[in-house]
Amino acid sequence: MENNERVVTVGHAIVDVLSPSDDGLVERLGLHKGTMALVDGEKAELIYSSLGPATEASGGSAANTAACLASLGEPVVFVGKVAADPLGKVFSHDIRAAGVRFDSAPESRVDAGTGRCLILVTPDAEKTMCTNLGIGAMLGPADVDVASITAAEIVYMEGYLYGERHTDQAVEEIIRVAKAAGTKVALSLSDPAWVDLNAPHFDRILDQVDLLFANEEEARRMTDSGDAQSAVEVLAERCETVVVTLGAQGSLVRTGRDLARVPAAPVDHVVDTTGAGDSYAAGFLYGFVNDLGPERSARLGALASSEVVSHLGARPLRSLAELARRSGLTV
Amino acid sequence: MENNERVVTVGHAIVDVLSPSDDGLVERLGLHKGTMALVDGEKAELIYSSLGPATEASGGSAANTAACLASLGEPVVFVGKVAADPLGKVFSHDIRAAGVRFDSAPESRVDAGTGRCLILVTPDAEKTMCTNLGIGAMLGPADVDVASITAAEIVYMEGYLYGERHTDQAVEEIIRVAKAAGTKVALSLSDPAWVDLNAPHFDRILDQVDLLFANEEEARRMTDSGDAQSAVEVLAERCETVVVTLGAQGSLVRTGRDLARVPAAPVDHVVDTTGAGDSYAAGFLYGFVNDLGPERSARLGALASSEVVSHLGARPLRSLAELARRSGLTV
Repeated sequence: MENNERVVTVGHAIVDVLSPSDDGLVERLGLHKGTMALVDGEKAELIYSSLGPATEASGGSAANTAACLASLGEPVVFVGKVAADPLGKVFSHDIRAAGVRFDSAPESRVDAGTGRCLILVTPDAEKTMCTNLGIGAMLGPADVDVASITAAEIVYMEGYLYGERHTDQAVEEIIRVAKAAGTKVALSLSDPAWVDLNAPHFDRILDQVDLLFANEEEARRMTDSGDAQSAVEVLAERCETVVVTLGAQGSLVRTGRDLARVPAAPVDHVVDTTGAGDSYAAGFLYGFVNDLGPERSARLGALASSEVVSHLGARPLRSLAELARRSGLTV
Repeated sequence: MENNERVVTVGHAIVDVLSPSDDGLVERLGLHKGTMALVDGEKAELIYSSLGPATEASGGSAANTAACLASLGEPVVFVGKVAADPLGKVFSHDIRAAGVRFDSAPESRVDAGTGRCLILVTPDAEKTMCTNLGIGAMLGPADVDVASITAAEIVYMEGYLYGERHTDQAVEEIIRVAKAAGTKVALSLSDPAWVDLNAPHFDRILDQVDLLFANEEEARRMTDSGDAQSAVEVLAERCETVVVTLGAQGSLVRTGRDLARVPAAPVDHVVDTTGAGDSYAAGFLYGFVNDLGPERSARLGALASSEVVSHLGARPLRSLAELARRSGLTV
C-alpha cells in the first residue's frame, strides 16, 4: 500500500495564527510587510500579545502544497517535524484529514514545541509572517524518508528549510537520495528576505534543482536582475524548468528554450494571499507528474492559487479537483 | 480603573475546532444536528479523527457574548476557567485582544486541559457541537468574581454552566452575590438538548432570572408548549423580561405586559450559525444597559447576529459598534 505516491513534499510543520491587522501595527512591530522573519519563542510571545483576535489553521509552505495536491486528487507524502503537543496534534490531524500521507512521529525527546507562524493579514490581502520554528529546526538527515523519495517521481522542498544547520543537512541528504534514485528535485525560493539571507547558500544547490519556483522578487534578488524575464534567463541556465509567479500578472515558465507566459485566474475578491505560492506550486506539480505540459501546469497553478487567496487561510476550502474539472484543465 | 464594567458574563472558556462537514458524517458519528453534546477526552479524540481539516478559533457561549459586547463598545468582564496550556493561551489572548477584561489565572493544579468544542458545520450553516469541558467543569464558587458582579448592572450566564456539580454551585453563588448587590441576573437556556436534560434544574432558579434568553425550541421544551408565543407567556410569569429568538423569523420580547415582535436583520449568505444566539444576546444586553428599550435592543441583537452568521466562527470580524451606528440603532 505504501510508497505509491509520485510526489513527496518536505518542509516545516507549522500551525498558522492568522490575525487581521493594519499597516500601522506591522510598522509598530518593526516587521517588513510581505516577508517572513524567524523569531524566538520570547519574541513570538511579545508579537502575539500585540495582535488582535486570531484564528488558528494548519500551514507550512510545503505542507500547504501537499494539501493542495491531495485536493487535486494526486497522492502525496509530506515530511516534516511536529512535537508531541496540542499544536502538533492539530497539524497532524489536518494534514491527514486533507488526504496527505504523513508518517512522521511526534518528537518528544526535545523540549521544543510545534512550529507556529504569526501572520498579520492587512486589508490589501498581503501577509506579514513571524515564524517560531520550534521543533522544526531539528529536522535533520535522519528524518528524510528515503523509501518515499526513492519511489516518487519528484521531491519538492520549501526554501525555508535551507538556512539552518540541521535542516541544511536534511536538504543535502534529500538531494543525494533523489539523485541516486532518479527522482526529480523541486525547490521553492520561499521568500524575498530569505533569499537575501541565503542567496550564496541556495547558489550551492541550484544546479541540482530540476524544477525551481520563485516569485518575481525572489527571482530578481537571487540573480541581481532588474526584471523577471532576465532573472528567468539566468536561472534557466541552472535549472531545467524555472517558474516565476508574478501575482495578478500571472506567471512565466521557462522549459529548455521555451518560454510560456500564463495569466492569473480571475478572483472576485482577494482576501488573504497566504499560501498563494504554495498552491500555485501544487497545481504546477500536478501538471508535471501528469505530463500536462508547462502551460497547462501553470494554468492549474493559477487556478489552485485563485481558490486559496479568496479566503483567510492557506489551504483550499473547496475541492481543487472539481474546480480543475469545471475549468476544463483536467478531465 | 477596575470594576467599571456594567456587564459581567460567565461561562465556559472554550476553543472551537470548526470543521466543514456533511449530514452523512453527523449521522455516522451518532450526533444530533443542531445540538450540543458533552463528550469525554477519549470520545472527543475519536470524533476529531473522523473530521476533515479544521480551523481553531476562540469560542464559548458567554465568552462570545462578551466579545460582541466589547465590539459594540460596551466595557465587559468575562469569567471562565482555562488551563495553563496552549489552548488556554489562545483563549486568553483572543478574549483580551477583543477588548474584554479577563482576569482569571490559568489553572495548573488539576490535570485537565482547556475546554474544546468540535463543531461540524453543515452546508445548511447549521452547527453540531461536541464539547469536552476539560478544566471548565471545575469552575466553582471560588471562581466567582464578587467585586465585578457587585459593581455591574447585570450578570449574564450561559445555561451550559448549569448541569454539573461544581458549575451548579458557581451559578447559585453568582445569583446570591447578584441579588445581594441589586445586580440583574440574565440567563440563556443555551441548547434544546441541554434543556431536555436539565429542565427541572433550570426550573429551580428561573424565578431569580430577570432577563431570560432562549430560542424557540429551548423555550418550548422548557415549558412543554406547542409554540413560541405560548412558551413566552409561561416564561414571562417567572422572569421580568423574556426574549425568544426565532432564527430567520426574528425574535419575540416580552417585558411586563408588552410583547414586541422584531424581524431578523438581512444576511446575504448564512455561512455558519455558530454564535448566532450569543451575539444576539450581546446586542440585547447592550440595549438593556444603555436603556434603549426592548425593541431597539432586539434590533441590535438581530444586527450583531447577522454579522456573526455571515462567516465561519462565532465572534465578529467587523466592528459591531460601526455596524450599529450605520444602521441608525446607536449614535
